[in-house]
Amino acid sequence: MKCYESITEKGTSWTVVSPIVFTYKVTETQNLLDPSNDTLLLGHITDLQQLEAIKQSNKPIKRFVVVDQEVYKIYGPKLTEYLEANNVLYKILALPTTEENKSMKMALKILEEVNNFSIDRRTEPIIAIGGGVCLDIVGLAASLYRRRTPYIRVPTTLLSYIDASVGAKTGVNFANCKNKLGAYIPPAAAFLDLSFIQTVPRRHISNGLAEMLKMALMKHKGLFELLETHGRMLLDTNFQADNSVYGRNCLQVASQATRIAIVTMLEELSPNLWEDDLNRLVDFGHLISPALEMKVLPSLLHGEAVNIDMSYMVYVSKESGLLTEDDKQRIISCMVNMELPVWHEACTMELIQKSLQERLKHSGGLVRMPLPVGLGEAEISNDTSCEILHRAYSKWCDELNVSSDSNCDS
Amino acid sequence: MKCYESITEKGTSWTVVSPIVFTYKVTETQNLLDPSNDTLLLGHITDLQQLEAIKQSNKPIKRFVVVDQEVYKIYGPKLTEYLEANNVLYKILALPTTEENKSMKMALKILEEVNNFSIDRRTEPIIAIGGGVCLDIVGLAASLYRRRTPYIRVPTTLLSYIDASVGAKTGVNFANCKNKLGAYIPPAAAFLDLSFIQTVPRRHISNGLAEMLKMALMKHKGLFELLETHGRMLLDTNFQADNSVYGRNCLQVASQATRIAIVTMLEELSPNLWEDDLNRLVDFGHLISPALEMKVLPSLLHGEAVNIDMSYMVYVSKESGLLTEDDKQRIISCMVNMELPVWHEACTMELIQKSLQERLKHSGGLVRMPLPVGLGEAEISNDTSCEILHRAYSKWCDELNVSSDSNCDS
Repeated sequence: MKCYESITEKGTSWTVVSPIVFTYKVTETQNLLDPSNDTLLLGHITDLQQLEAIKQSNKPIKRFVVVDQEVYKIYGPKLTEYLEANNVLYKILALPTTEENKSMKMALKILEEVNNFSIDRRTEPIIAIGGGVCLDIVGLAASLYRRRTPYIRVPTTLLSYIDASVGAKTGVNFANCKNKLGAYIPPAAAFLDLSFIQTVPRRHISNGLAEMLKMALMKHKGLFELLETHGRMLLDTNFQADNSVYGRNCLQVASQATRIAIVTMLEELSPNLWEDDLNRLVDFGHLISPALEMKVLPSLLHGEAVNIDMSYMVYVSKESGLLTEDDKQRIISCMVNMELPVWHEACTMELIQKSLQERLKHSGGLVRMPLPVGLGEAEISNDTSCEILHRAYSKWCDELNVSSDSNCDS
Repeated sequence: MKCYESITEKGTSWTVVSPIVFTYKVTETQNLLDPSNDTLLLGHITDLQQLEAIKQSNKPIKRFVVVDQEVYKIYGPKLTEYLEANNVLYKILALPTTEENKSMKMALKILEEVNNFSIDRRTEPIIAIGGGVCLDIVGLAASLYRRRTPYIRVPTTLLSYIDASVGAKTGVNFANCKNKLGAYIPPAAAFLDLSFIQTVPRRHISNGLAEMLKMALMKHKGLFELLETHGRMLLDTNFQADNSVYGRNCLQVASQATRIAIVTMLEELSPNLWEDDLNRLVDFGHLISPALEMKVLPSLLHGEAVNIDMSYMVYVSKESGLLTEDDKQRIISCMVNMELPVWHEACTMELIQKSLQERLKHSGGLVRMPLPVGLGEAEISNDTSCEILHRAYSKWCDELNVSSDSNCDS
C-alpha cells in the first residue's frame, strides 16, 4: 500500500494505492459426495496448520448449502447422507435457480436463511451446488454477507464446469438485463467432479462444448483437434467412462479436454480478474450473442447463441484474411458435429451492427473484436471494415442457411 | 498473477493468486459547489491525458447524483445551479437516507433510477452527497451496478468527513443488523469541503469529534492535544472561520485537526482495506458500542456510543497499568469538554461481557482489544483478565456516574 500526499493552493489531496490479493483454488476431484472424501468440507483450506487443527478438533463443521432444485431431486439424498456421515451441522436450501429467477429477490431470500442459520463469516463458507445461475446468485449473496463471506462452487453442468466455476464473476439479472448487478469476487474454491455431468441432457452438453470451442479457437490448437476428433464422442457419452462402443478412452479425452479448457480459461482470467483490461479473448462469441439470446429467449441456450456469434465471426476472420477457407470449413464442421447451431435467422445484419455499436460504447470507444487467426490463435481487431462485415454476413447466410435462401440483405 | 498447478492421485488442483489494485483519491477543496470549481466533475481523474481530452471535448458531462433529502433542502438550488452552469446532463435523486431507511430496498431504488438514466459505467461515476448513511448506500449500489461502477463521496457531516469518506466500506442494514450487507469497494474519490459542516447541529459535531478522538488516542498525541485545547472551540464554531471571540485561528485548527484525523485513518485503513488483518486500532470504541447503540436506539448517536465504549476502555487501560491516572483524567476531561457522554446506564457489565464474547467469535478466537498506552499510542490486548474488566467497570461507575450511586455490580 502507498499513500501519496500532494498539496496545491486548493488544499491537500491524498492518493491511496492499495492492492488486494485474491487466492482461490480450482480442484478436480472424484466422488465428491462420497462420505470419505473431505474435499467439499475442507478442500478450500490452504493453510496446512489450520487444516490439521480442524481435523483434530471435536467441534462439528457447520455449512450452509444452496442447491439447485433439479439437482437436489437427483443428488439430495446423497448430499444429506454425506453431511450426516461427516457430522456436519448443516442447512440445505433447494431453490429453482433458473434464468428467470436470477434476481436480487432470490439473493435476499438466501441471505435471510443464511442469517437465520448463523455462520462464521471467516471459516464457514457457503456452498453452492448447481449450474451457472445457481453459482452466480450464491456467489453474489455470499459476497454481500458481512461485506464478504467465502463461498464454494460445485458446478453440475458442463457449461458451469468450464466457465462459471473458474472465474470471479457473480451476478443477478436486473431491469431485464443479464447480470446487471453483481460483484467480482472469486470463490474460496471450485470443486470439479465430472460425474455430475452424466445427468446433463444432450443439448446442454452441446451448450457447454460451445464455450470449450471458444477457448480452443482463441488459445489452443490441441483442444480444437480434440473437439474435432472426439466432440461427437463426448456428446454421446456425457464426458463419462463408457462401456459400449467408445470404451475407457472416453473418460481420458473428457478429462483432457476439460482440463485444457480450464487451464486456458484461468490463464486468460486470472491476470484480469476484474476485467480492467478491455481486450479480452474470452469475449469471443460474446459480442453479438447477448442481444441474440435476449431477442429469442428462451429458444437459444447461452452456448448456442455464443456458437452462432462465433460462426459468423469465423466468416469475418476469413474475409479479413486471417483464416484459410480450409480452416474455416474445419471449424464449422466441428460445430455441426457437436450439434451446435451455426446460423440463426434472428441474427440479422441489423442486430450485428447494433451489437457492435453497443460494444463500442462500453469498451472505451474501440470495438475490440477477438478474431481467430488460424486454429488456436487470435487477435483483437479494431478496424474491421463495414464492407468486410457485410461480405462475411452474405457468405455466412449463403453457405450456412441451408433451410432456404431467405433474406440476407439488410 | 500466478497460477500454480498441483497434481495428486485425486486429480489436478490449480491455485490462483491474483492481485487487484485499488486507487482512490481523498481531496480537500473549498467551494465545491462554486461553478468555477471542477473538482466535483473531474477531480477523480488521475490520468492527465484523459483529463485534457475531456476538457477539450464538446461532449457534455453526464452525472447521476444522489443527495440526502435534508442536505438537498439546504444545498439543492446551489447544486442544480452548479450542474447547469457546467452544462452537465444530470439527474438528482434526493432521498431520506436515515439509519432506518438504510436497506437493500433503497439501494435497489437508486439502481433503478441509475439504470433508467443510463450511464457509462467506466467514465461516469455516481456522486453521493450526504452523511455516512447516504455515502454507504450509494457506495453499495454503485459497486453492484454492472459489477462495479465508480462512485464519488461528498461528506456533509463531520462524522462522515473524517470516517466514511476515507475508507472502502459500503453497506446497508439487514435483518435488524447494522451493515450486515455490503462491499469493500473504495470510491474513485472523496471530496472534502469543510464548509458543509457549518449547517451540522452542535450534537452532531460532538458525534464527529468522538471519532477524531479515537484516532488521537490510538495514534496521534498532537491531535489529542489539539482536541484537548481547542475541542470546545471547534464545537462552538462548527469548524468554520469565526468572526466573534475565536477569530481566524479557528479555521486553521479545524483544518489541522481534520487533516491529521484523515491521514492517521488512511495510514490505518489503506494497508488493510479489506480488513483481513483482525488487529485493528480503528476498532477502538467499537467493541461494546454496536450492542449499546442498538440497545438504546435511537437515543445515542454512533459517535456517542463509541465515546462511552472508549471511556470505559480508558479505565481498563488504567487498571491494566498502561495509562497513568493523570492521563486518564485528561482524556475524560477532553471528552466532557466536547460534550460527549462518558457513561451510560445501559452499558452494564453484562453487555460488556456479551460484546467481548461476540467479538471473540468473529475475530478468530482472540478478543483483540485496542487499548491506549499513554496518549497517542496503543496496543492490542488479548489477555485482559476478567478481574481487571470488573475493577475498571466498578471505578468507571463510581467516578463517572455522577447522577446517582446506582447499581454497578452485575
